[in-house]
Amino acid sequence: MNIPHPYLMFLGDVQDQLGAKTAQGIVDWRRDWCLGQIRLEGCKADLGIPDMTIAEAAGQGARTLVVGVVNAGGVLPEHWTSVIVQAIEAGMDVASGLHTRLESIPAIAEAAARHGRQLFNVRHSDQRFATGKGTKRPGRRLLTVGTDCSVGKKYTALALEKEMRARGMDADFRATGQTGVFISGRGVAIDAVVADFISGAVEWIAPAADPAHWDLIEGQGSLYHPSFAGVSLGLLHGAQPDAFVVCHEPTRSTMRGVQHPLPSIQEVIDLTIRCGRLTNPAIRPVGIAINTKAYGEDEARACLEAAAKAHDLPANDPIRFGVGEIIDRLTEEFATE
Amino acid sequence: MNIPHPYLMFLGDVQDQLGAKTAQGIVDWRRDWCLGQIRLEGCKADLGIPDMTIAEAAGQGARTLVVGVVNAGGVLPEHWTSVIVQAIEAGMDVASGLHTRLESIPAIAEAAARHGRQLFNVRHSDQRFATGKGTKRPGRRLLTVGTDCSVGKKYTALALEKEMRARGMDADFRATGQTGVFISGRGVAIDAVVADFISGAVEWIAPAADPAHWDLIEGQGSLYHPSFAGVSLGLLHGAQPDAFVVCHEPTRSTMRGVQHPLPSIQEVIDLTIRCGRLTNPAIRPVGIAINTKAYGEDEARACLEAAAKAHDLPANDPIRFGVGEIIDRLTEEFATE
Repeated sequence: MNIPHPYLMFLGDVQDQLGAKTAQGIVDWRRDWCLGQIRLEGCKADLGIPDMTIAEAAGQGARTLVVGVVNAGGVLPEHWTSVIVQAIEAGMDVASGLHTRLESIPAIAEAAARHGRQLFNVRHSDQRFATGKGTKRPGRRLLTVGTDCSVGKKYTALALEKEMRARGMDADFRATGQTGVFISGRGVAIDAVVADFISGAVEWIAPAADPAHWDLIEGQGSLYHPSFAGVSLGLLHGAQPDAFVVCHEPTRSTMRGVQHPLPSIQEVIDLTIRCGRLTNPAIRPVGIAINTKAYGEDEARACLEAAAKAHDLPANDPIRFGVGEIIDRLTEEFATE
Repeated sequence: MNIPHPYLMFLGDVQDQLGAKTAQGIVDWRRDWCLGQIRLEGCKADLGIPDMTIAEAAGQGARTLVVGVVNAGGVLPEHWTSVIVQAIEAGMDVASGLHTRLESIPAIAEAAARHGRQLFNVRHSDQRFATGKGTKRPGRRLLTVGTDCSVGKKYTALALEKEMRARGMDADFRATGQTGVFISGRGVAIDAVVADFISGAVEWIAPAADPAHWDLIEGQGSLYHPSFAGVSLGLLHGAQPDAFVVCHEPTRSTMRGVQHPLPSIQEVIDLTIRCGRLTNPAIRPVGIAINTKAYGEDEARACLEAAAKAHDLPANDPIRFGVGEIIDRLTEEFATE
């Protein structure tokens, strides 16, 4: 799935900023791929990039209209169709992260066929996967795991990629969710794969590589989340990580969408090692990533210091303070092997 | 999915007895639903029930032609189509456990439409599931778990249902695989569900029930199988079992389809409790089911005794010696609660 950029970001008329979460993630990590945004009347989200019409975006070279929104049910609202058709007529491909397949809307399918444009359904993969084999592959792999959903697993993996590349290391972010696929232009939304193929799909996403190469694999869910732990375990086994980073949000009291309390960082470390050993007996933690957005500077520093001390691991907020110490530890741990 | 019986079992021309595993499971557990079998020239499997033509079966009241075979890729061979169409023309519905959807074959779809017959694709569910919630539901649940795939999890759950009903207990087998769905006429092939909905689908399969009612939930895979552990964990969380039985095959040296060694029964008990506590803190083992087919009578008895002693649990071979002691333990454990 190679989605041509630059992108024109379509937000429809979503009712809050959270509805544009996918688009915001793309802008945060690939600002130079995003020409501008197009919003319908009543849209309550704003990516902070120029508003433009289809014609303006086409004139500036936009190659793909990105439907970068999330909504309940993942359905494409009918009144968004005409903008999508106009973009196709102006020469753009279309990529959507919604559950509804673009080609299931007749007007969109017909316009794409007529103009020879591509339709990308990022949540769906047409790839046929094998079941996971669990055999050790060459190359290094790091997985971001979490105490919950939406605690920064994707942002941490992307921050690691950015900083490792800046240090001249050979490293690739590997997307396992729709926003990650948009950002990296490849990958698989693993939660949409048929259950039998979770680990097999991850083996395909992060294949055998050069022994010094690092795959930075985006984790999903949590081994302790009652809705999604199966996905998290299949991902762990398929990733067969040498190293993992635990991601955490310290102000949350219950897990997202359910009534269960969050596990401790230590519980996540222990269960990740115990289960991860099945496909990589040498699995080990190399850092803790904490989203300290809710804290002032002093409180954030104190929280990170406490976590680092408690677990004898570098702890950082990747967005606020970077991931340097985690990469130092990674380099140290694997230098002599 | 209510598949009308009696069934005519179609084996095509599968090349060994294993290819007819689904059909054999149905005959083993629902002999009175199976009128006969129909086989193409060169078929190497035999269910030990009368061979009959479509006309003979229709004359005796067969209501569904069951395509009860497994093959690599789950594809329906083209040369099987004409028998299926003939069955439809003779008034039968058709149910298939293959990956290929019956209606994707034009001749079959047209015949079914013309004659108003139903097509059942047992591996696929049209049910829309919610994501799992992990909230404790009323009713008792027992899950069969395994040291590997194909170690008797389905047969153990079915044997428990049979014996518990014979004792006047209120118990229902809950199918999570295609053969189980054929046998019970309901359920969901959980390995074919989209990954995000594994635990949610199991919550749907084994819903809230009378406090004294037992669901006997068919397990899948193993928490230690690198290909399928994600499915097994989602199933465990969705089932939120009060009790579990560990199923084991003592002669196997590596896990099915991969090179990994089998875990010990104790490892499976420990990890099942550790992970299962997330949705049922009171989860506990109540027995061990060992497939002793490869052993003579004395060796089988010795193997079961050793396992019972090592784990302080009743150990039995459900097919060879029954499940009485496991139900005794279950009754004892839960009588006072």
